Amino acid sequence: MDKKMTVVLSGGMKTDVLFAKDIKDLSKQLSGYGNNVMWVFDANSARLFRDLPERRLILEPGEREKNLRSLELIVSRALSFGMARDSRFIAFGGGVVCDMTALAASLYMRGARLTLVPTTLLSMVDASLGGKTAIDYEGGKNLIGTFYPADEVLISVDTLRTLPAKEFKCGLGEVVKHAFLSDDVALFEYLIDNKDAILRRDRNTLAELIGLSLDVKRKYIEKDPSETKGIRSFLNFGHTFAHALESTANFSISHGEAVAWGIGRALEAGKLCGVTPAPLADKGMELLRLYGYDVDYRIGRGDWIAYAEALGKDKKKYSGSVKFVLLRDIGDPVLSAIDGKYVQAVTIQSVRYKVL
Amino acid sequence: MDKKMTVVLSGGMKTDVLFAKDIKDLSKQLSGYGNNVMWVFDANSARLFRDLPERRLILEPGEREKNLRSLELIVSRALSFGMARDSRFIAFGGGVVCDMTALAASLYMRGARLTLVPTTLLSMVDASLGGKTAIDYEGGKNLIGTFYPADEVLISVDTLRTLPAKEFKCGLGEVVKHAFLSDDVALFEYLIDNKDAILRRDRNTLAELIGLSLDVKRKYIEKDPSETKGIRSFLNFGHTFAHALESTANFSISHGEAVAWGIGRALEAGKLCGVTPAPLADKGMELLRLYGYDVDYRIGRGDWIAYAEALGKDKKKYSGSVKFVLLRDIGDPVLSAIDGKYVQAVTIQSVRYKVL
Repeated sequence: MDKKMTVVLSGGMKTDVLFAKDIKDLSKQLSGYGNNVMWVFDANSARLFRDLPERRLILEPGEREKNLRSLELIVSRALSFGMARDSRFIAFGGGVVCDMTALAASLYMRGARLTLVPTTLLSMVDASLGGKTAIDYEGGKNLIGTFYPADEVLISVDTLRTLPAKEFKCGLGEVVKHAFLSDDVALFEYLIDNKDAILRRDRNTLAELIGLSLDVKRKYIEKDPSETKGIRSFLNFGHTFAHALESTANFSISHGEAVAWGIGRALEAGKLCGVTPAPLADKGMELLRLYGYDVDYRIGRGDWIAYAEALGKDKKKYSGSVKFVLLRDIGDPVLSAIDGKYVQAVTIQSVRYKVL
Repeated sequence: MDKKMTVVLSGGMKTDVLFAKDIKDLSKQLSGYGNNVMWVFDANSARLFRDLPERRLILEPGEREKNLRSLELIVSRALSFGMARDSRFIAFGGGVVCDMTALAASLYMRGARLTLVPTTLLSMVDASLGGKTAIDYEGGKNLIGTFYPADEVLISVDTLRTLPAKEFKCGLGEVVKHAFLSDDVALFEYLIDNKDAILRRDRNTLAELIGLSLDVKRKYIEKDPSETKGIRSFLNFGHTFAHALESTANFSISHGEAVAWGIGRALEAGKLCGVTPAPLADKGMELLRLYGYDVDYRIGRGDWIAYAEALGKDKKKYSGSVKFVLLRDIGDPVLSAIDGKYVQAVTIQSVRYKVL
């Protein structure tokens, strides 16, 4: 394993991110933990293993399973294995498995050891880093959770080989987001220059891409580990528009595609407000189109009320008005309210707002 | 309210401890939070209020209710009130209410605001400070929990007036424990000099006593906020012996009485091992007797196997052998294994071990 980076989080807790050279290298690292562990898979990620470890739990796959019942399954199984505070939970799977196992580890005897092995592009570049754990509850996404950074995140790009195309595109949406938030243009240009190698999932290209993407997230997290300074909320670039779309579309579109669409909305709205320079907005839209994201999609006029309501719900976590992340420049985000007419102009069919 | 102390915990989180002059003063502080709150009582603590606040949940009292179902009740009720991340959970009650409400607050949207108003002596001097939250699970005490310090702990000794005598004595057990762990003799001597005023629950005497006691706990917590350095585990003085007794006695004795008995065991065992100076051990036993704790109690010979097994379970949280906190001097605890014959000598009927 190659150590890629160490991320320092709230309370001085640290997460090491390691890249495996290949699946063998990953297995070697994982077997090194001995028997004082428990593995959590979902039915999809379990298929990546020929010989599954004995101390394991295999969950049903999917966001629907990200619930209190699954959390209880993990804790009960851990108890039946006699896990102690110095035992290690190993999550092997996508964001749902990682988020839930991390929550269970944070709660078990007030905190056991935790290794995340994300097996989807989305969980590699997003869920695995930053210490956010969660389950959904009574319709509220990630309503119950903790901040509990993993000791280690182990990444093997080989696990991406069998990832469905839709899932891969979903993860790329977050990578693209990080390209806009980076304080240099390295990731942005890497995406433009290496499109073909990325899409055919070339091993070295992906490792480089994921490393660049994680490095952007790392910087935002380290500046605001407990999410109290507002800096970390910039990682929600595109997400306010996206969440409202996901919620009115009943989650039939993937998170990453919604985020890419949301980024498009934020770029166009920023341009209309005079916050985002037109050349940057246009260049950004080009990048989104290059990767095949449907940035020209607009919601129907009849769906506006539902969409506006869903936008309003995004503010529920804090009292106050809806704020959006807009871009003043690459790597220079700002939190800002947006006039309703601009929001409509960039989201609804045939409502175009012309700058006078 | 008088601000007594600020305790700095893991990750720079802070807990302010405030003492109310009287119940009116406490009410004034609490009503100052406005309406963005939710109160959690149990049936006992709710009786202390004439007009209960509207946004409330009243739980059944007792350790049996410290379970996942009650936790869900708190979270569901919070959701129904539209609580957000900047809303405040107010726990008003004993250790069970405080521990569970704190866990709910730590999990709700990954962490809402939290005020604890402990209404028992035990929760004032113990549960309210240090950030430990918990519920029991599948027979495991405090098996599920987090570290999440309250923003504020509000103490009104007036709430102790109606506390049953057994509960009061239970809390005193932890106060006595702090007297042994203090780096000066102030608390130890205060207990000796003010026994009558303490037992008749004189308001100013109790406030002083609780302040001294909290100050001892504060020092241990601040030196080891995340419980990783072993320093905080000294607060378990007497607890290894006590937990095993509680578990074999099926919890029919109170926690504080078990702790006082456990302190007696630790003093006597320390004396036998040559760790605790005889004059200190004897003086300590005198203090325990002064407050009416039954330090001469011994478990029956037939119960030894069950007791020894329960002692072994205490090590389960970490791999390794059972360690006890012994005292080298007042304020100078040490973690140490104890030879089995000494353990037997201080716990079983008619097994007396004579130092040759």
